[in-house]
Amino acid sequence: MSRRLRIAIIGTGFMGRMHAHAWRTAPRFFDLPFEPEVVVLAGSDAQRASDAASRFGIAESSDDWRAVVARDDIDAVDICTPGDTHAEIALAALDAGRHVLCEKPLANDVADADRMTDAAAAAASGGVVAMCGFSYRRTPALALARRLIEEGRVGRIRHVRAQYLQDWLTDPEAPFTWRLDRDRAGSGALGDIGAHSIDAAQWLTGSRITSVSGTLRTFVDERPVLDERVGLGGRAGAGAGAERVTVDDAAAFTASFSDGALGVFEATRMATGHRNANRIEISGDRGAVAFDFSHLNDLLFADATLPAGEQGFRRIDATEPEHPYAGAWWPAGHGLGYEHLFTHQSVDFVRAVAGEIDAHPSFAEAAGVQRVLAAVEESAASDSRSIRVEGVSS
Amino acid sequence: MSRRLRIAIIGTGFMGRMHAHAWRTAPRFFDLPFEPEVVVLAGSDAQRASDAASRFGIAESSDDWRAVVARDDIDAVDICTPGDTHAEIALAALDAGRHVLCEKPLANDVADADRMTDAAAAAASGGVVAMCGFSYRRTPALALARRLIEEGRVGRIRHVRAQYLQDWLTDPEAPFTWRLDRDRAGSGALGDIGAHSIDAAQWLTGSRITSVSGTLRTFVDERPVLDERVGLGGRAGAGAGAERVTVDDAAAFTASFSDGALGVFEATRMATGHRNANRIEISGDRGAVAFDFSHLNDLLFADATLPAGEQGFRRIDATEPEHPYAGAWWPAGHGLGYEHLFTHQSVDFVRAVAGEIDAHPSFAEAAGVQRVLAAVEESAASDSRSIRVEGVSS
Amino acid sequence: MSRRLRIAIIGTGFMGRMHAHAWRTAPRFFDLPFEPEVVVLAGSDAQRASDAASRFGIAESSDDWRAVVARDDIDAVDICTPGDTHAEIALAALDAGRHVLCEKPLANDVADADRMTDAAAAAASGGVVAMCGFSYRRTPALALARRLIEEGRVGRIRHVRAQYLQDWLTDPEAPFTWRLDRDRAGSGALGDIGAHSIDAAQWLTGSRITSVSGTLRTFVDERPVLDERVGLGGRAGAGAGAERVTVDDAAAFTASFSDGALGVFEATRMATGHRNANRIEISGDRGAVAFDFSHLNDLLFADATLPAGEQGFRRIDATEPEHPYAGAWWPAGHGLGYEHLFTHQSVDFVRAVAGEIDAHPSFAEAAGVQRVLAAVEESAASDSRSIRVEGVSS
Amino acid sequence: MSRRLRIAIIGTGFMGRMHAHAWRTAPRFFDLPFEPEVVVLAGSDAQRASDAASRFGIAESSDDWRAVVARDDIDAVDICTPGDTHAEIALAALDAGRHVLCEKPLANDVADADRMTDAAAAAASGGVVAMCGFSYRRTPALALARRLIEEGRVGRIRHVRAQYLQDWLTDPEAPFTWRLDRDRAGSGALGDIGAHSIDAAQWLTGSRITSVSGTLRTFVDERPVLDERVGLGGRAGAGAGAERVTVDDAAAFTASFSDGALGVFEATRMATGHRNANRIEISGDRGAVAFDFSHLNDLLFADATLPAGEQGFRRIDATEPEHPYAGAWWPAGHGLGYEHLFTHQSVDFVRAVAGEIDAHPSFAEAAGVQRVLAAVEESAASDSRSIRVEGVSS
Repeated sequence: MSRRLRIAIIGTGFMGRMHAHAWRTAPRFFDLPFEPEVVVLAGSDAQRASDAASRFGIAESSDDWRAVVARDDIDAVDICTPGDTHAEIALAALDAGRHVLCEKPLANDVADADRMTDAAAAAASGGVVAMCGFSYRRTPALALARRLIEEGRVGRIRHVRAQYLQDWLTDPEAPFTWRLDRDRAGSGALGDIGAHSIDAAQWLTGSRITSVSGTLRTFVDERPVLDERVGLGGRAGAGAGAERVTVDDAAAFTASFSDGALGVFEATRMATGHRNANRIEISGDRGAVAFDFSHLNDLLFADATLPAGEQGFRRIDATEPEHPYAGAWWPAGHGLGYEHLFTHQSVDFVRAVAGEIDAHPSFAEAAGVQRVLAAVEESAASDSRSIRVEGVSS
Repeated sequence: MSRRLRIAIIGTGFMGRMHAHAWRTAPRFFDLPFEPEVVVLAGSDAQRASDAASRFGIAESSDDWRAVVARDDIDAVDICTPGDTHAEIALAALDAGRHVLCEKPLANDVADADRMTDAAAAAASGGVVAMCGFSYRRTPALALARRLIEEGRVGRIRHVRAQYLQDWLTDPEAPFTWRLDRDRAGSGALGDIGAHSIDAAQWLTGSRITSVSGTLRTFVDERPVLDERVGLGGRAGAGAGAERVTVDDAAAFTASFSDGALGVFEATRMATGHRNANRIEISGDRGAVAFDFSHLNDLLFADATLPAGEQGFRRIDATEPEHPYAGAWWPAGHGLGYEHLFTHQSVDFVRAVAGEIDAHPSFAEAAGVQRVLAAVEESAASDSRSIRVEGVSS
Repeated sequence: MSRRLRIAIIGTGFMGRMHAHAWRTAPRFFDLPFEPEVVVLAGSDAQRASDAASRFGIAESSDDWRAVVARDDIDAVDICTPGDTHAEIALAALDAGRHVLCEKPLANDVADADRMTDAAAAAASGGVVAMCGFSYRRTPALALARRLIEEGRVGRIRHVRAQYLQDWLTDPEAPFTWRLDRDRAGSGALGDIGAHSIDAAQWLTGSRITSVSGTLRTFVDERPVLDERVGLGGRAGAGAGAERVTVDDAAAFTASFSDGALGVFEATRMATGHRNANRIEISGDRGAVAFDFSHLNDLLFADATLPAGEQGFRRIDATEPEHPYAGAWWPAGHGLGYEHLFTHQSVDFVRAVAGEIDAHPSFAEAAGVQRVLAAVEESAASDSRSIRVEGVSS
Repeated sequence: MSRRLRIAIIGTGFMGRMHAHAWRTAPRFFDLPFEPEVVVLAGSDAQRASDAASRFGIAESSDDWRAVVARDDIDAVDICTPGDTHAEIALAALDAGRHVLCEKPLANDVADADRMTDAAAAAASGGVVAMCGFSYRRTPALALARRLIEEGRVGRIRHVRAQYLQDWLTDPEAPFTWRLDRDRAGSGALGDIGAHSIDAAQWLTGSRITSVSGTLRTFVDERPVLDERVGLGGRAGAGAGAERVTVDDAAAFTASFSDGALGVFEATRMATGHRNANRIEISGDRGAVAFDFSHLNDLLFADATLPAGEQGFRRIDATEPEHPYAGAWWPAGHGLGYEHLFTHQSVDFVRAVAGEIDAHPSFAEAAGVQRVLAAVEESAASDSRSIRVEGVSS
């Protein structure tokens, strides 16, 4: 591991910290072809970037992502900013010949996603890697689900049922954030968490969503604005104003898959009692797999080829040495957490840069997710009429 | 309990046996204003009716339901036949002044359901009771859910998510039955089990479904016909033919409720690994309730008014003396089963006949379910376009 | 089913009602060689017996169990009284040539249990059946566990871990009952619920407990006596006195089994939050089974012969037609309840009377349980020193 | 965070890697008074130490722990070796004035543990910190359990039930390791995992175990020795020999606590189907808490002060900002893993060194655990007779 992969992280928030941790941790547990090293953290505000770099353990900081992307000593750009900035940064980075890891959603609309996909395709010919951060794919239990499906253990797939349930907006007085602003976030629960379900569904089944019929809801139209002086996480004080919510609180849609399966999707931030229940279940004629991120190390697997009297969902603790990614960690049964998804993502990114594996989710795959999101929004605006997903042949 | 309620059961199948057991059991555990007594069992075939009566512990049998309904010594008619016969029997019984308990679905189409509702309304003026058998309402845990909702513990409702998951059709070689024949059954998973979800959702929320957007799937178009000589439950032998499946294997729809809630419904007989998972969850701004018939004595309740650090779904074992129906049975924690739903239904029917309580679900409520089913079918046939449920003002 | 089995129930409490229900229900769902019929209910108080008979649906009542046992038209005596009366009634009944079903515990001490066992052995030569009511054996999920163990699916057994957790005495103000009086009840949690665990453990493993090391606790020494005028279930009113608790609130012991397995047992009525968690788990070198009566239809089974990456406890819903007893009831997935254990017990008793199967648990087996209870008490009184169970060769 | 805490890790195995990760991670998520830095890794073999240092991301390595401990630039020594070496290293480190973090068990016998405790007490007067690594205390869910108990939410404690269930020795052909050698490991399941249960029980209840009655089992007396050339994790090849197992495979004991509670403990490596189920439940007269490391982010809490009809164990996802340690990490519901226990341990160690908090578990507390282990062994060797724990007044 003599060669280094020098990385710039763009974004000083929660995701920037997460990625910094992942890059630092990956080489300590996995044998990697390159040693990743985050050399600089860029943000829009100099002081905030400097503070964050110090907290995240990164030597340098900058308030000029363009300059950072242009630096010759940077091999890869890791984009951890809100969705409305992804396209500009990614295009600049790819143009400069940098490998790019871009957080999801790839972009806030299909047009941007397509431009990014085209740029990634062009860059690929020069050996440049572009990957989108649908990190749930790197959950060992979900990766095990995919392996079982690929091995035929679920058989011909009939059903995909996905619920992504959060509850942080249950309280009508929960404060306004940029995630509730369509200009910044693109959409609400649909794009933020429903996108994860769509990516997982297509990846697990190896099949594409061909059409959708959807509906969106905004239950609370307006939310209090935090008095900045109160700080993040505080409550709106007297005299603070309110801001209009311009995205969905919840989205629901049915879907047809290219292999004939029926999908039912729900994404909401008002599922009272569920902090982060990212659930997906796939039913086939030979078996079924079911997952809930609330117990992220568990995969439930029902084998319908067993005698009827012995069937039932079994809880596989996906921490065995033979399970995806798990062998690098602790003895079986010593659970992994959320951050491992990102460490595994870093591992796969480094291996893709070295040419050992293909880079997935590709920008093209992520743009495909964006197309499904767009179709759901179009259907919701058209009386839930079924809308074909653009560019997918059924 | 000196007065008797003399009952005729029409139908010799699984449901007839269940109802016979319920009538026999109810007065042994509940103080009832009348002593119910099943005096006759009617079926289409004399020998089968006689055999069933003997097995069910009923003194008389008949192959002429019309004659039975007309008997002066019959107070109530309990209809346990397939849906295509409900209207004719119920109308005759109501016309003869008999109280009527009719298994769900009330009818196979809205027109029949409306005629039955009109007849029930007319008969009501003469003190005649008509009730439809959506038995899940009588599950103590679900009745507790309703009580909590009525008490405001869930608050303003945003979400209804209902899944009715069975798997008995997973195997493409599972044999054909009358339930797969549109003429007999009306519809497939939609009307058979989805109807339970619709009734539960409307009953629990006290709100009506105003519009739906749905889709239906038949994954296996044709199924083997059992050689009659092999007997029920056997496999199709060599030489046996096949029959066309004319109903849905699975149905999915989104729904709007009159109180603004968003509903997501799935009903399927191909949910591999789930024998009978009738699930419903209601999310509000003060709490949530979740139920799964796989553990029928449990109600999960999340109280969002507790401090955040103490919140979480709690498993209430709905067998306490203070829980609905449960006080009549065993000490807390000694679980009840499926048949108790029917015993409780018998209890409520007898009490309604005595004027102690109103009869619910009324034929009007059941016809309302039928209207939702019809709207789902219309939507599914119209590219999933949102369809308003007839007769409901939003 | 032309011949009748005429039964007298002795005992007007909760168990008498349960048995009456079981005898009434069994022939409606199972093909039986005899038609059981409860002809008389006996209790110590004439009015109470008469009232109970009316409620339970039994034609006759009596306040003289001796006379009842002596009646020529009685074939079987079903003893549902507290433990201190079992021996006298059972001996009289066996002496009169009646078949006997005796609720657990067989007796309050080993001496009585032995006398009953001897009497049962003597009566057996005349074709008289004696059975003790350890009803949990008739839970389909537990009977499935036994079948799996017999088939070798668990392999060589190393561990038995049993917890019987109730919480009805958690509150120090919960009122005194006969169950807290050593003279009536024999012992506390140990004999009342621990006995179930012991019987289940020996029956499931097919092995005997050879020695035990135990301890007993009484956390609340004295409890308020209900003012009789307040009625059962009420709270002690002002002026009501208190009664001394003379039995254990909780018992714990380790055990050695004749096949070398290690047992850990806990029985308590102060397991806060557990209404009736009767749990047992058996670990072997090929698999494990785990059961909790809180979800009585589930058996958890782990198959250790599968590849490591596919292992895990699977939830078998023990309501399939091929599962013990379950085929007589509803479609798979439509849960059974507590009372089914007693219906199944009635079925097995009738079949044993007809000579179709052996009567289990025999009085000898139940006396064996009593010996273990006695050994636990002796150990607890001897500084937890390991005590060999009398009459068992290791 | 200008000052550094320079650390030497002794031990190149799984625990060394874990601690290295914890020291590296802690300052990135917590505000610490010192910046911890691992400057050297010591092992018994120079090449192995050098390789491990490289993998763990540590600059220096050494095969001479004595020299390392003596280095002036080392502030703290972190002992991650097998138990038989703990005393010697810890005594040398304390003698040299180094702060010491020592993995559990503190020592392999009471005599060593006492010497270490004495040395720690002496060193404490000079501001030197000594802490033992019972890491499970740092699980947020368990720390929340302790907080609830301290706040009186469980009330007067009656029951402690602890099971530590692993299954890696289920297969009789699983190979021999140093953990099965009494000279190296001290004891088997008892000291390795039962010690965690003992520490957790005493810490959670704030009460001491005063006496125990125990039993030990070794089910497989001899195990194959891996052919070294096959490598770790492989199976014994032809020609490889066997080694005698000199420790327990399983331990079980009952315990009395100084507050009157009854404890039941089981620790085993043959609990088929359980990879690492570290379970503990505490029952009191106001509530109960239950934990299973298989779902390490969940705390089950039953509040017995609620109305009976609303009671039940609720699943608290202990990842809220207000939960112990959790606020430093991800948004609520994004699960933590096993390694977080060690990161939290590093945090608390650094804070203890800075004098911000007391160092727990102290060597005295850990020696107290050792005394319980010794009492269990003595009881097991004395026919399970109850043995008072040395040095604890009841």
